[in-house]
Amino acid sequence: MDYKEITFSQTNAIGILTLNTPKNINVLSLQKIQEMSYVLEKIAIDDSVKVLVLKANGKHFCAGHDLSQLVDRGTKEYKLIFDQCTRMMMMLHDIPQPVICEVQGIATAAGCQLAAWCDLIVAADNASFSTPGVKIGLFCTTPMVAITRAIGRKASMEMLLTGREFSATEAKELGLINRVVPLEELDGEAMKLAEEISQASSFALAIGKQGLYAQADMTDVQALHYAKHTIVMNNTSEDAQNGIKAFLNKTSTEWKNR
Amino acid sequence: MDYKEITFSQTNAIGILTLNTPKNINVLSLQKIQEMSYVLEKIAIDDSVKVLVLKANGKHFCAGHDLSQLVDRGTKEYKLIFDQCTRMMMMLHDIPQPVICEVQGIATAAGCQLAAWCDLIVAADNASFSTPGVKIGLFCTTPMVAITRAIGRKASMEMLLTGREFSATEAKELGLINRVVPLEELDGEAMKLAEEISQASSFALAIGKQGLYAQADMTDVQALHYAKHTIVMNNTSEDAQNGIKAFLNKTSTEWKNR
Amino acid sequence: MDYKEITFSQTNAIGILTLNTPKNINVLSLQKIQEMSYVLEKIAIDDSVKVLVLKANGKHFCAGHDLSQLVDRGTKEYKLIFDQCTRMMMMLHDIPQPVICEVQGIATAAGCQLAAWCDLIVAADNASFSTPGVKIGLFCTTPMVAITRAIGRKASMEMLLTGREFSATEAKELGLINRVVPLEELDGEAMKLAEEISQASSFALAIGKQGLYAQADMTDVQALHYAKHTIVMNNTSEDAQNGIKAFLNKTSTEWKNR
Repeated sequence: MDYKEITFSQTNAIGILTLNTPKNINVLSLQKIQEMSYVLEKIAIDDSVKVLVLKANGKHFCAGHDLSQLVDRGTKEYKLIFDQCTRMMMMLHDIPQPVICEVQGIATAAGCQLAAWCDLIVAADNASFSTPGVKIGLFCTTPMVAITRAIGRKASMEMLLTGREFSATEAKELGLINRVVPLEELDGEAMKLAEEISQASSFALAIGKQGLYAQADMTDVQALHYAKHTIVMNNTSEDAQNGIKAFLNKTSTEWKNR
Repeated sequence: MDYKEITFSQTNAIGILTLNTPKNINVLSLQKIQEMSYVLEKIAIDDSVKVLVLKANGKHFCAGHDLSQLVDRGTKEYKLIFDQCTRMMMMLHDIPQPVICEVQGIATAAGCQLAAWCDLIVAADNASFSTPGVKIGLFCTTPMVAITRAIGRKASMEMLLTGREFSATEAKELGLINRVVPLEELDGEAMKLAEEISQASSFALAIGKQGLYAQADMTDVQALHYAKHTIVMNNTSEDAQNGIKAFLNKTSTEWKNR
Repeated sequence: MDYKEITFSQTNAIGILTLNTPKNINVLSLQKIQEMSYVLEKIAIDDSVKVLVLKANGKHFCAGHDLSQLVDRGTKEYKLIFDQCTRMMMMLHDIPQPVICEVQGIATAAGCQLAAWCDLIVAADNASFSTPGVKIGLFCTTPMVAITRAIGRKASMEMLLTGREFSATEAKELGLINRVVPLEELDGEAMKLAEEISQASSFALAIGKQGLYAQADMTDVQALHYAKHTIVMNNTSEDAQNGIKAFLNKTSTEWKNR
């Protein structure tokens, strides 16, 4: 596929997916959604990528859906857009690699959803998060799913019912994002975090990243049963056996990532 | 119905439900519970009310159940009170209108539950929240449902096991409430927030307010499916179509609220 | 049972379970896990214990599993360890008594899980919490269950994917722990909290502590139904009837703990 609205590159074990239509604030057009799904599917089966960084070119992260595609068409066409967008968002949880999102400027509506659906968020101090759909008659129901799973109910309700912007500082206090850094350090901080995480065994990372969501929806007892068998499987792996022995012997090990 | 323990009024599109027995700290007597359910049922089907403000007359918000009704009676009578109280609390989530709670002074036991079950809380700086049932042998199990769904497990456990008062500041840090303001600004702040929210389409507000709770109990994948179809339905509505076009054309629109 | 790796004592109504192998940072060997399960089972049916304090001797709380037991053995043996450890963790939620954990120094991997699985945590200012399994190829999946149920998803993901240490201050901000105190006040603060909670009726405490977890996994409506009948049962108890009357009459009462 020839990407028109995104770019993809790789630095060592870190994949970098960049939204690349800064002129329209990187809106999630159907084209962009399809390109993102395509590249995510490729990444999912690419062992050489251990961590994915999702970022955007320009002053802002993403302004949400391409609203021009949401008027004067039929229900089936609207459903197609939200179907494919939802599938793309689900892939962010399903791929084995941890996904770190870099946010500068605005992350609005589905742009806020996109960031919130990533595993980790590093934000610039000029970043803001909002779900202003309520102001144009289109409630941010799809972003709501990601937001209510990241922060508390009362703050979610305020964000969604008022549509107001939440600053990076406020987002950090609420638990929506992991780190706030000066804009000029955004890239460096996200890459440092990606590098740090990519030192781990990709087998262990996949078990952890996918497992967190797998067990989040279970009851406590179900989750404990899931976790118990998962960690036994993990423990029998070559990487865990070598890693534990290296730790006990105070040496280091090379991951076979299996 | 002739209200004896509450009042109801309306300012523009904002309904105002006021607990009105300050002498007994607005306790949730069976009479008050029934009056609240009655007025909530009326509000639920009244399109002219877009946002509801729930407040209380006097120095304090609400001291919880009328304890005199919980002694020296039979199990069936106790069950009747908790049945009807629970139904009333559920209505706060079920009605299509967002509910903003104003809290001054104490919000205790079922009074704390009542506040926590509202969509948004604005508190005066003299407000405190507590679930002291544990101290009189009657654990605040019904308030617990609301509290554990608003704040973290460790803080919930401390609140419920110790029964101690949590200040407005602490409640804000924990995510139990949205805003803390000086007592003299309480009314103004809540009304300003209600005004702001009431600018939106009531169709969009209902989708959002009811939807947040609807999807909260679903697994991630279930919630995404629910959200996807909900937003398509929302997008086909007259308000969304007009709202999006107005946004794209940089004009404004009048909601038809449908 | 003759305890080799723990001690158990009782002060008034407060049971004190102490991890007692400071030389190996109180690792959760199979022996220690079995001793803990044994004593928890005894506590569960001992009415004289109203609150349990879980603490550790030495500079640190607990370094997690005994890694020497997790190498060069078979899958069945690994499963046995995680089976028995999981059962022990579940007992911390199942016993009727509230459990307060005291943490000084490090709480690592399954040590962090052990603390997080307690009802309340009081930490010394030198305490740190981490799940560094990812660094040795053994992702902290079992600790993840406890952590994701105590704090938000984004912070959980960071803790688990990076393995870095979270200070007591950071843990408090995230909601993982209840209180941070100077190291020399750790014991005093935990015992004061235990004393305070142990003033309540043990019947009410059990309803509350066990109930919080019981309803946490339910939908909102299921939880409300559960809570409604639970509080009616509680209200009919001797302790609640006496407690309410004492409150109404401004006198005090002696709990019969039933």
